[in-house]
Amino acid sequence: MNIEKAFAITLKEIRNQKKLSQESLAFASNLDRTYISLLERGKRQPTLTSLFFISKALNISLVELMTILEVKINENK
Amino acid sequence: MNIEKAFAITLKEIRNQKKLSQESLAFASNLDRTYISLLERGKRQPTLTSLFFISKALNISLVELMTILEVKINENK
Repeated sequence: MNIEKAFAITLKEIRNQKKLSQESLAFASNLDRTYISLLERGKRQPTLTSLFFISKALNISLVELMTILEVKINENK
Repeated sequence: MNIEKAFAITLKEIRNQKKLSQESLAFASNLDRTYISLLERGKRQPTLTSLFFISKALNISLVELMTILEVKINENK
């Protein structure tokens, strides 16, 4: 699976697991809600800094986020 | 240390450890040499896709790259 799609799915899954709305994730990561929505539809690419703030807002480390993402990328290669 | 600076230092350190020039890293990751130089000076932010291709070119996983980066971020907090 390509990385943009894998990240979109991963972000949505973790956000839902954490029972966060796009609004509250956006607020907690100091990003715009529409940006979160675009990320979850694979329409935008996160920068490293956005990834950093999103992982903090999701209460997981960057390493955990990348671990989940790499599993997703390799899922249906 | 802020994440931009931490990534700049991390990228340069790993590239040197792997004995790669900016040129060869740029070629292997299908990115422009000036972009690699800007990343190493903290003047640009990598997107997730650039991180993915850079980690492949450095022959490490995204998770390994983020692990080294997180150590660097926490080094002189």
